[in-house]
Amino acid sequence: VVLRNLLDNGYPGAIYPVNPEAEEILGIRVYPTIASLPDGVEVGVVLLPAQMTVPALQECVAKGMGHIVLSAGGFAEFDDRGGSIQRELSAIIKQTGVRVLGPNTSGHTSTPAQLTTSFFPLGKIRPGQLSYIAQTGNFATHTMKLILTSEHYGVARVIGLGNKIDVEESEALEYLGDDPQTHAILMYLESIDRPREFLHIASRVTRHKPVIMLKTGATDAGRQAAVAHTAALGTEDRLVDGLLRQAGVVRIHAYTHLVLLGRALSSAPLPRGNRVAVLAPSGAMLVSLADLCARLGLRLPDLEAQTLQRLEEHSGGFIRLRNPVDIWALTSKSGIKRAYEEGIDAVMDDPHVDAVAAVLMLSPDQENPSPEVLKQIVRAQPEKPLLLSFTGDRQSIEAFEAEAASLQLATFGEIEQPLEVLSVVARCRGAMDRPE
Amino acid sequence: VVLRNLLDNGYPGAIYPVNPEAEEILGIRVYPTIASLPDGVEVGVVLLPAQMTVPALQECVAKGMGHIVLSAGGFAEFDDRGGSIQRELSAIIKQTGVRVLGPNTSGHTSTPAQLTTSFFPLGKIRPGQLSYIAQTGNFATHTMKLILTSEHYGVARVIGLGNKIDVEESEALEYLGDDPQTHAILMYLESIDRPREFLHIASRVTRHKPVIMLKTGATDAGRQAAVAHTAALGTEDRLVDGLLRQAGVVRIHAYTHLVLLGRALSSAPLPRGNRVAVLAPSGAMLVSLADLCARLGLRLPDLEAQTLQRLEEHSGGFIRLRNPVDIWALTSKSGIKRAYEEGIDAVMDDPHVDAVAAVLMLSPDQENPSPEVLKQIVRAQPEKPLLLSFTGDRQSIEAFEAEAASLQLATFGEIEQPLEVLSVVARCRGAMDRPE
Repeated sequence: VVLRNLLDNGYPGAIYPVNPEAEEILGIRVYPTIASLPDGVEVGVVLLPAQMTVPALQECVAKGMGHIVLSAGGFAEFDDRGGSIQRELSAIIKQTGVRVLGPNTSGHTSTPAQLTTSFFPLGKIRPGQLSYIAQTGNFATHTMKLILTSEHYGVARVIGLGNKIDVEESEALEYLGDDPQTHAILMYLESIDRPREFLHIASRVTRHKPVIMLKTGATDAGRQAAVAHTAALGTEDRLVDGLLRQAGVVRIHAYTHLVLLGRALSSAPLPRGNRVAVLAPSGAMLVSLADLCARLGLRLPDLEAQTLQRLEEHSGGFIRLRNPVDIWALTSKSGIKRAYEEGIDAVMDDPHVDAVAAVLMLSPDQENPSPEVLKQIVRAQPEKPLLLSFTGDRQSIEAFEAEAASLQLATFGEIEQPLEVLSVVARCRGAMDRPE
Repeated sequence: VVLRNLLDNGYPGAIYPVNPEAEEILGIRVYPTIASLPDGVEVGVVLLPAQMTVPALQECVAKGMGHIVLSAGGFAEFDDRGGSIQRELSAIIKQTGVRVLGPNTSGHTSTPAQLTTSFFPLGKIRPGQLSYIAQTGNFATHTMKLILTSEHYGVARVIGLGNKIDVEESEALEYLGDDPQTHAILMYLESIDRPREFLHIASRVTRHKPVIMLKTGATDAGRQAAVAHTAALGTEDRLVDGLLRQAGVVRIHAYTHLVLLGRALSSAPLPRGNRVAVLAPSGAMLVSLADLCARLGLRLPDLEAQTLQRLEEHSGGFIRLRNPVDIWALTSKSGIKRAYEEGIDAVMDDPHVDAVAAVLMLSPDQENPSPEVLKQIVRAQPEKPLLLSFTGDRQSIEAFEAEAASLQLATFGEIEQPLEVLSVVARCRGAMDRPE
């Protein structure tokens, strides 16, 4: 699978499979042993059971390879025997200076280099401007597959840390902080090994790039699960919270948000602040979303007189106009299409508003708002995110979403998600703007 | 639209439109005035601007109608003039004893009676065993359209309370509590008018049916939005929390959960308790879901020795087996399909487990678990919910979901949702089992 992935991604370098039993795999000549390889191989990917990893690493080092990916699990996270193998690996690293990713990793990906060492069948990986650092195999395996098949964004680098006996989060973050291909960094961690180092590096990176982290093991149940996963020893959660806040890293708590934020960061600008205008076709949605804004630390600013006047022009005059905006007020006079297009344009134009979240009500029985018109509004306000969600008829929603995707409009499946995402990216902006 | 909806739902009673300018609408004879209607009309649906509502209500009463739906908005929620009209309506209700739903409501629906008074084009409304009480028009309009086109469940009754000058939540809840067609009740409220009455009724209903409520206006921002929506005067939120807890009503906080819970309650049994087994193809998911369980008040019980033994039989022996279960441990030996089918069967069989949440990893490059096999497992454990979510390849997920829907397996778009939903339904069970 690793070979297939390298071929699918058009890796331009030479590839040397090693296997004692095959002569050719996928048309590539196979070498019987590591020792029989030609000289000059730069990266070794070792896909062998834990107990065979130590001699393999030694042979790779002897062959002059400076960088090794150790994929197998079954080390400290599994049992004492695995823990002792892991200590042997650490000793080799210390003695030889070889750089190791893993063990217990699904590898890493670099779309600018057309390289992936993932052992999960991925096909061509879409390039993008986001990078993931993950103390788990997911982001190089099935979560990447989900991103490639469900999302429209791509990635620059993915670094699967695994049990991180050598390369760990601080070094990976430092690399991505300086990486011109990486505009935002999403992290999944179960432990932070060198908190002081991490604070030092993250404090610098977060001044010019959003850094968002899901740090799990926040509860006893989570900590126990983390030991079984990557042998991670969790820190008391309040300390983690304090460290991340000081470092300007924005903490999230749901796995799914690692993907939703990738979507938001790839298709919308960072807002200048946390002042949001909300539009929905329903008082109930507006009230529950107003509650949600308050919980998430988002503000619902009063709209300018001029904005209210623009909204009033379309209003049927039976619903009070304010932020959050009940789009229903505008529909009886102007119809759904114009109500949304004019309403969104008016609030996007308001200088008190940093970002707009709109719930579009779509139906086959009406003229629906046009993705192209909304895209024009977004183009006119390149510093304001417009995040969309939906209610109404499923087919109409899917038709809108397909067109929105081709225009790179940011859409979300649930009405809460645009606000959840905005609260995170507004905090990223706050970290970038914080005083020295 | 109201007429179209009544026809689409096959309402078996007589329908009499009133309009001074039409002679026939949708093939139905139109009457010029309320006074010109035949005698014996039971329900009047008034779709007139606020200022015309008072004379219309008087004429309906004079004609002997006992039940009126007042759809228009523009009353106390809008301005002082509207507030004074609303007081006139209240006086008529008090004098005459006519029963009124609204004003500012999108009407009500009763699938057993094939009746809806909604003014939103809905088509045929799918019958089901859930009922909604909503202080908003959504559940009779676009959210119902979303449910009908995106979900596979139906409804028994939907009661849109609007500004509730007469029929309010306590009376609606009492009705649904005794309604044999209603097996579970979902409520959206912005205010509770008669807390003592509500406590009395809800305390009784929650002993035999789940009652779940989104009570908004929990924050200052939400309370301000609620005044503009239904003129609701919010109570201090801690008092609401206490009242609902005492009444056995389970409170939720996200609008979207009103739909997700409808899905769960319609396709899975109530769990006996809060002990959950979680299966996922990823340590990171397991750790973050373990954190989530702890936050949601769900327990991850230790599995029985016999269950662990069944899991071990399929294990490749490099991942520690425990609850939450890393399905990856089982795949190298048995393949993805058997790993999930045997793994889910084993934990569903465990007497320490009340419910199972499984993240299925689907891909075109493997044999995937069979919805039919999972349905057989569910049939063998009719008291245990199995809630599914997904990762991997989008097309494989959509194919699985389509088959799962026809088998009434409960599936969710995000890995957190099965646990969010289970925490709510487990609390409903707790309310039903609470001591007198």
